[in-house]
Amino acid sequence: MHAQRLSDLRAELARLGLDGFIVPRADEHLGEYVPENAERLAWLTGFTGSAGMAVVLADKAAVFSDGRYVLQLAAQTDPALWERRHLIDEPPQGWLAANAEGRRIGYDPLLIGEEALGRFTEAGVTMVPVEQNPLDAVWKDRPDPPMAAAVPHPLERAGRSAEEKREEIGKILRAAKQDAAVVTDPASIAWLLNIRGTDVSFNPIALGFAIVHADAGVELFMAPQKLPPATRDWLGNAVSVQDRPALPGALRALKGKRVRVDAAGSPIWFAQALRAAGAQVVAGMDPCMLPKASKNAVEQQGTRNAHARDAVAVCRFLHWLETAAGNETEVSAAERLVAFRTEVKDFVGESFPAISGAGEDGAVIHYRATAETDRKMKHNETYLIDSGAQYLDGTTDITRTIWTGPEAAPNDIRDRFTRVLKGHIALAMAIFPQGVGGGHIDAFARNALWQVGLDYDHGTGHGVGSYLSVHEGPVSISRAARPIPIAAGMILSNEPGYYLPGSYGIRLENLLLVQPAELPNAVKPFLRFETLTFAPFDRRLIEPSLLGRAETDWLDTYHAKVWEVVGPHMPKGDRKWLQESCRKLEQM
Amino acid sequence: MHAQRLSDLRAELARLGLDGFIVPRADEHLGEYVPENAERLAWLTGFTGSAGMAVVLADKAAVFSDGRYVLQLAAQTDPALWERRHLIDEPPQGWLAANAEGRRIGYDPLLIGEEALGRFTEAGVTMVPVEQNPLDAVWKDRPDPPMAAAVPHPLERAGRSAEEKREEIGKILRAAKQDAAVVTDPASIAWLLNIRGTDVSFNPIALGFAIVHADAGVELFMAPQKLPPATRDWLGNAVSVQDRPALPGALRALKGKRVRVDAAGSPIWFAQALRAAGAQVVAGMDPCMLPKASKNAVEQQGTRNAHARDAVAVCRFLHWLETAAGNETEVSAAERLVAFRTEVKDFVGESFPAISGAGEDGAVIHYRATAETDRKMKHNETYLIDSGAQYLDGTTDITRTIWTGPEAAPNDIRDRFTRVLKGHIALAMAIFPQGVGGGHIDAFARNALWQVGLDYDHGTGHGVGSYLSVHEGPVSISRAARPIPIAAGMILSNEPGYYLPGSYGIRLENLLLVQPAELPNAVKPFLRFETLTFAPFDRRLIEPSLLGRAETDWLDTYHAKVWEVVGPHMPKGDRKWLQESCRKLEQM
Repeated sequence: MHAQRLSDLRAELARLGLDGFIVPRADEHLGEYVPENAERLAWLTGFTGSAGMAVVLADKAAVFSDGRYVLQLAAQTDPALWERRHLIDEPPQGWLAANAEGRRIGYDPLLIGEEALGRFTEAGVTMVPVEQNPLDAVWKDRPDPPMAAAVPHPLERAGRSAEEKREEIGKILRAAKQDAAVVTDPASIAWLLNIRGTDVSFNPIALGFAIVHADAGVELFMAPQKLPPATRDWLGNAVSVQDRPALPGALRALKGKRVRVDAAGSPIWFAQALRAAGAQVVAGMDPCMLPKASKNAVEQQGTRNAHARDAVAVCRFLHWLETAAGNETEVSAAERLVAFRTEVKDFVGESFPAISGAGEDGAVIHYRATAETDRKMKHNETYLIDSGAQYLDGTTDITRTIWTGPEAAPNDIRDRFTRVLKGHIALAMAIFPQGVGGGHIDAFARNALWQVGLDYDHGTGHGVGSYLSVHEGPVSISRAARPIPIAAGMILSNEPGYYLPGSYGIRLENLLLVQPAELPNAVKPFLRFETLTFAPFDRRLIEPSLLGRAETDWLDTYHAKVWEVVGPHMPKGDRKWLQESCRKLEQM
Repeated sequence: MHAQRLSDLRAELARLGLDGFIVPRADEHLGEYVPENAERLAWLTGFTGSAGMAVVLADKAAVFSDGRYVLQLAAQTDPALWERRHLIDEPPQGWLAANAEGRRIGYDPLLIGEEALGRFTEAGVTMVPVEQNPLDAVWKDRPDPPMAAAVPHPLERAGRSAEEKREEIGKILRAAKQDAAVVTDPASIAWLLNIRGTDVSFNPIALGFAIVHADAGVELFMAPQKLPPATRDWLGNAVSVQDRPALPGALRALKGKRVRVDAAGSPIWFAQALRAAGAQVVAGMDPCMLPKASKNAVEQQGTRNAHARDAVAVCRFLHWLETAAGNETEVSAAERLVAFRTEVKDFVGESFPAISGAGEDGAVIHYRATAETDRKMKHNETYLIDSGAQYLDGTTDITRTIWTGPEAAPNDIRDRFTRVLKGHIALAMAIFPQGVGGGHIDAFARNALWQVGLDYDHGTGHGVGSYLSVHEGPVSISRAARPIPIAAGMILSNEPGYYLPGSYGIRLENLLLVQPAELPNAVKPFLRFETLTFAPFDRRLIEPSLLGRAETDWLDTYHAKVWEVVGPHMPKGDRKWLQESCRKLEQM
């Protein structure tokens, strides 16, 4: 099947006079979750992971993915057809440089950003944009694009009217002397116009594009059938709606204008179309990104409420886990957590595919338990579960690592767990001046591990949306974070970890809300974090002697708050367990 | 006098058809310390500060400097001739945008880098390079360039032969597929060719330029009279020497070649000349920067030796200070420290102008005591001294803040001092993986201040040379640090501070040598710091209850090491004082 597809594509490339073609795992929005009709990489290669790329030449082909998908890539793709390569260590541009120097390699400009394309051009191949994706020409039964209805996100959840937001963006554009901005991220459109959708999994967005003008008017490009009358009314007269095919004409109409395009987040097709039309393309961040990242007071209270309700499901689940070892599997446990969440008011769905890893599976950082990998939870091992939910009033994301017992946890695992916890607490307690970015405080969360030569190979935190994407830009907490100041109202995850491959994994994650720090002697504005997530940390894995006084105080105060917030809402049968789990550390 | 100079310059600009001209405080190497013949800003405006720029239009003119020079700028320049402006808050490009939009503003391409020039171009003025600096045409008695002899830096101090270094740079260029690199930083040339000079103050460099070729050959552009026969022999046959006027021809000879130019550190004249000659300019860091920053074993031992000797002078000075209050001034104290250093073996001179600030003067971050500002050191106040020395085997830089007594220091000052000390210790104790840059660990030094809403408005650390510049790139420890990994062998300063304007200033600085961290369970290479500087911290300013166990242990261990290293070399009269100053904190 995949042999036929590959040979069909090669025939099409030959017809187009191309020496090769790249097939990234991407849709026209460069989004994390893509609709079925954009699953070109899976259709062509069989590989269904969430990150990857295929490169097809006339005589050879390779498929790339990153470290978390090594086994899956090998299992799902045919070695007779595909060289299997590491996306980061042996990137596609290097493979092309070695195998196709100077050749003409096609790409679909709707599926790659300007910065990513630049890396191919630098590799010494000639990158040729195609007007129509040749893969789509040979994918005969390609699904239709999703046509789910977009629905209003009401003011009592959004906190600010779309009109006010459009005015803010217009003002930003006028200040930058720009006439318009192209917005290709459906999450930005969802924020800007106060709408939500169900076109893709996990992220409540309606796929579409927008042009925002300096006068605060918006052209929305979205199939009319996705906008029922109530939603069309909700958008108002300052938002014009046209179907997707009208987009090229609308870009041509920007001739002579200064138009902002996000060089990292938008497909290069937009800059190319604008330049061809005689518009002046100005590289700049999607203007909705920063305003969207700083949640207003209504969104902040919504996310607090969502987290308090989510905590009931999570705490019931943690209690339920006490007897899971020997009876449950990674998959059944994750399903049980979804079942608890389904009982929570305003639950919409998971905010990402849960990571449910027992023992050595917990050491696989982006592990996903499937029917093939699923295994029973054993006694006397760690179990890591990273999960989240979308509620109408907020998005959650929490990770806990527990000890299944009944024996005591080994000292080395307790040492590592406590060091991860120290990092988590250091970040939660951080106070820092305005202007500081996520790259400047990342080390707080790593320090206790670094002191003994350990570390974790992922970022410490990512932005989180308000009933939107659980991975939201532009701010993150990591060594590679963009130099963008952390600002009040942002929601960031705090998730240090430690992973011993083949043995166990630890990750401890709460979400943080950035707040002004009220300090009596402050010489300038400072910020601090409010922890949004409420669930106890497993004290069977804590070594109290490794914690300093301030750390123990933080933990006791946190657990007291968990009991205060969650306790009253716990079913009777779970309440005592929670109270016990939230007692002071000294009382062990 | 300055009115005449300004009007002469204006006449010359009119003759050249220019609407204006910018006069940065810079020489052709964009160096921190410039020779007299490059003091154009001082000649034109009267302002002698180390950072600034003048902008001259036909009908108005402005002179800019930063916060540390506000008073000096006002005192030294004539308000009838010059608007006085803040270099950072009201930058020259903004002033030009407001006063000369669209006009033709001249600049000397030898005195500004590509990145700095870009900010003017963006401001909407037309920047016009001049072939000859019009100011030089009207500066009739302009001094000749310095012609000090360059001397060999012997192998027993340099640790690596120039041949080996040239081979390394050639290899770097070949790996980058570059044919040559232009090196405009005399410190890089000094490192590469193992020579030193005395052309400018504080920095033992010989001014010159070099072109390094991929075959490891070097063209050195330096006046032949600066190279006595011994030095010429030392350079060897692979280094050709030509006088400065041969430089344009040598650049023209690079037609068709790929040539690396440092866009931040080199005057834009080089890129312009190369492009005009038909060479391909590749922006890239001066290839000597990183190899120079990582000191070899001989340089490391040299700097240890230099610091141990310097410590004797510093400790004698600190003892001497005990009776200074009421008797000495900021200037006389700084002179006394130089006198102590003059007695030290292989002392060459100061490595920068000492900052000697009593009481409120200590709060001026880059304070320089002059005849006008000098004041007596009083009883019961702080005194901050930041100073350093050049020795043949290494460069030192140390800051201590002491309490003059005899009364006890107030609690608030002791609180602040101890928080600065906690930051200093946190950085000194840091352990971190390879790959981490100075922006990632800067917050360690600020955390204790941040917790109470305080901070300091300067970087935490800078690179230091090996008998070279006391401010050496490319690595620094600050929020704005370039994302360059800290590497073994680098020398960095550790100098957090706290400043209460109008009242007092605290800064505590040691130099650190980056070392591999030998950790038994490390999962990858980690680094740690070896403290190079030995002098006690004034315990009259320490509040022991604010220090944690690990911090107290660090301090006691450090003081024990100071006594061990410095004690045996202290004159008898100073020895007891040092021993007392190095006792354990608990014994107070």
